[in-house]
Amino acid sequence: MPELFTVLPPAEALQVLLDCLPASVRVERIPTADALDRVLAESLVAPTSLPSFPRSTVDGYAVRAADTFGATESLPAYLSVVGEAPMGRAPEVTVGPAQAAVVYTGGMIPAGADAVVMVERTQKLDAGSIEVLHAVAPGENVIQIGEDVKEGESLLQPGHVLRPQDLGGLMALGITQAKVAVKPRVAIVSTGDEVVPPDVTPGPGQVRDVNTYTVAGLVARAGGVPLPQGIIPDDFDALFSAAHQGLDAADVLVISAGSSVSTRDLTADVVNRLGKPGVLVHGVSVKPGKPTILGVCDGKPVMGLPGNPVSAMVVAGLFLTPVLWKMQGASQPPVRRVKAQLTHNIASVPGREDYVQVKLIERDGQLAADPVFGKSNLIYTLVKAEGMLCVPLDSNGLHEGEWVEVELF
Amino acid sequence: MPELFTVLPPAEALQVLLDCLPASVRVERIPTADALDRVLAESLVAPTSLPSFPRSTVDGYAVRAADTFGATESLPAYLSVVGEAPMGRAPEVTVGPAQAAVVYTGGMIPAGADAVVMVERTQKLDAGSIEVLHAVAPGENVIQIGEDVKEGESLLQPGHVLRPQDLGGLMALGITQAKVAVKPRVAIVSTGDEVVPPDVTPGPGQVRDVNTYTVAGLVARAGGVPLPQGIIPDDFDALFSAAHQGLDAADVLVISAGSSVSTRDLTADVVNRLGKPGVLVHGVSVKPGKPTILGVCDGKPVMGLPGNPVSAMVVAGLFLTPVLWKMQGASQPPVRRVKAQLTHNIASVPGREDYVQVKLIERDGQLAADPVFGKSNLIYTLVKAEGMLCVPLDSNGLHEGEWVEVELF
Repeated sequence: MPELFTVLPPAEALQVLLDCLPASVRVERIPTADALDRVLAESLVAPTSLPSFPRSTVDGYAVRAADTFGATESLPAYLSVVGEAPMGRAPEVTVGPAQAAVVYTGGMIPAGADAVVMVERTQKLDAGSIEVLHAVAPGENVIQIGEDVKEGESLLQPGHVLRPQDLGGLMALGITQAKVAVKPRVAIVSTGDEVVPPDVTPGPGQVRDVNTYTVAGLVARAGGVPLPQGIIPDDFDALFSAAHQGLDAADVLVISAGSSVSTRDLTADVVNRLGKPGVLVHGVSVKPGKPTILGVCDGKPVMGLPGNPVSAMVVAGLFLTPVLWKMQGASQPPVRRVKAQLTHNIASVPGREDYVQVKLIERDGQLAADPVFGKSNLIYTLVKAEGMLCVPLDSNGLHEGEWVEVELF
Repeated sequence: MPELFTVLPPAEALQVLLDCLPASVRVERIPTADALDRVLAESLVAPTSLPSFPRSTVDGYAVRAADTFGATESLPAYLSVVGEAPMGRAPEVTVGPAQAAVVYTGGMIPAGADAVVMVERTQKLDAGSIEVLHAVAPGENVIQIGEDVKEGESLLQPGHVLRPQDLGGLMALGITQAKVAVKPRVAIVSTGDEVVPPDVTPGPGQVRDVNTYTVAGLVARAGGVPLPQGIIPDDFDALFSAAHQGLDAADVLVISAGSSVSTRDLTADVVNRLGKPGVLVHGVSVKPGKPTILGVCDGKPVMGLPGNPVSAMVVAGLFLTPVLWKMQGASQPPVRRVKAQLTHNIASVPGREDYVQVKLIERDGQLAADPVFGKSNLIYTLVKAEGMLCVPLDSNGLHEGEWVEVELF
């Protein structure tokens, strides 16, 4: 029964897995309106200039700037108002010397004018004339053609995760469809003779399935689509059949293994039988999460997570999340990190990364990271925590008062 | 045409609006499995203890700890193996003095045993006996009943936004349904004679609708459901009818106004006609975003956003986002903030909050916030930015090198 597998450091283990994945990203064209949080899969270039006509940034009067030079409250410039620039149409009026036309914010600057005087800086004399109380420079209060984006300018690169303003920016240019990465489907198989569905009252020695739901949540957060496959007993044929079916229907397979040695071997055997090359990494120098299995079966990533909920979540965060972003070609996955000061010493052992759950508290006006101690099998250490910190591979611990980086979850 | 409305500081304006909203949160019961990122609307208490039986945290042998006291590699304790604790069932075996039973990680500790020796710290002599090479203390490698959560212990409070591990934690206790806040539906009306749908090629003086899509994205990010209502011309009857219909179908109404003064008045008139009390705030001391309208119509929040895309997004972030979280009763809305050092001076004017878009860059190993300058109407200043910083109300600017807080978007 001794653990015979050779363990790899987490970063190395991830690299082994990523190196065996196909480099290409599967893409689809979807309406830009539906593309929030999707990963862009094309390089976008402005098809036209924005704005496509000179626009006013204020409510006021379009003028020839030169006509206002030297104007002050005591010595205003007198201009005759020759018309109004309507919204949504090209103005028919032309602004000549000593003339002005009413314009609204966003309206098109009439021909002849080269600047806009804010209405607050004018005084109306009568229906046909105004006083301008402050000079404006040419171009003042005007957005020029292409000042937002120029035709042909590069907008967004492949790998960019689309945000609300990106959708707006694309719509502004009429880019109503976008090529994005297909959301990876992740089959989640939960195994263990002791595991029952959450709606069943567990008998003695039984526990409810937790990992299907935490992993599904992490998959959704990493842009994937979770496909739960139910709970499978610790039996090679049953597990192989469920795994095979799951992998067929999905792009990634996650087996949350019963954590006994026998089940771990079962998972490794199943992964090796599912496709080539099979198991790539069996054991990672991380706590919790050592008995992790990483593999690739005919181009699809397959992972065996430890059965205990905390290990499963740590390992899914370390390997599944980056694999899903990689499959989508994401250049900069959205993560939430904060710096905080450690409230207690944390002991560790060189040669493995330790992940420690922390609560974030305010102390002396600073953000502090307060470790949630507890055996690594306790799901409520995760529920009570706001994030995790990593004690590096070669460190034998962190000291109270040290500044650490906390990844929020 | 002068702007006559009195402006309020943003925090005060938000408070006026929040104070006029109903305090109650609309709730629904949904499957826990579907509750990721939803706001919990009940106080949850553990119905049973977790675990409900003493479990092993390792693969090894369940023993009476006292039998191992003093055991070392040179002077091991000899125990006879009397059976195995199966996974998922109560063990039939009982561990007596000088006896041991095989247990697996997560398995139930047999009666009589009070600790587990890791398999790595034993040596198998024959099928029926082992040597224990290290002593274990009572309770070692065992999770006791209720060590994760005790029956009756408080789990989660109303207002908590549910994360992957929370779903797992609830499932572990058989809480397969949860009472959560109903997702607020937000009708989005875009107005402006100059605004055309994104799939239309704009004529002279026309621009494509941007705000429907940026606002919809922000609504989705704040847990709401966007209900776009299309583009309405600057006409009281048309706008009133669309607004009325939108508000009927939704919990919140957002009118992205054409930004001319005439349209702003139109929006205020429509809001005042839609229900009581109508407009609460007309004008906020924020740049961009001054011509903001906040109101409540018969218990539902209604907002008039400035027409220009950057102002609309800043104002939606300042008012719509907190209103949506408040309507869901969220205690701590998820925001992403980082501290960064400013790369340039930013001038401002006391008496208003300035929101400035920034890119985040690495400089001398520190995170630096590099302002994206540009007129406030340019949507691509938002696309090029990674976040926003706020120049406070009473400040006349920020200095290069100052540490600022950047809200990421």
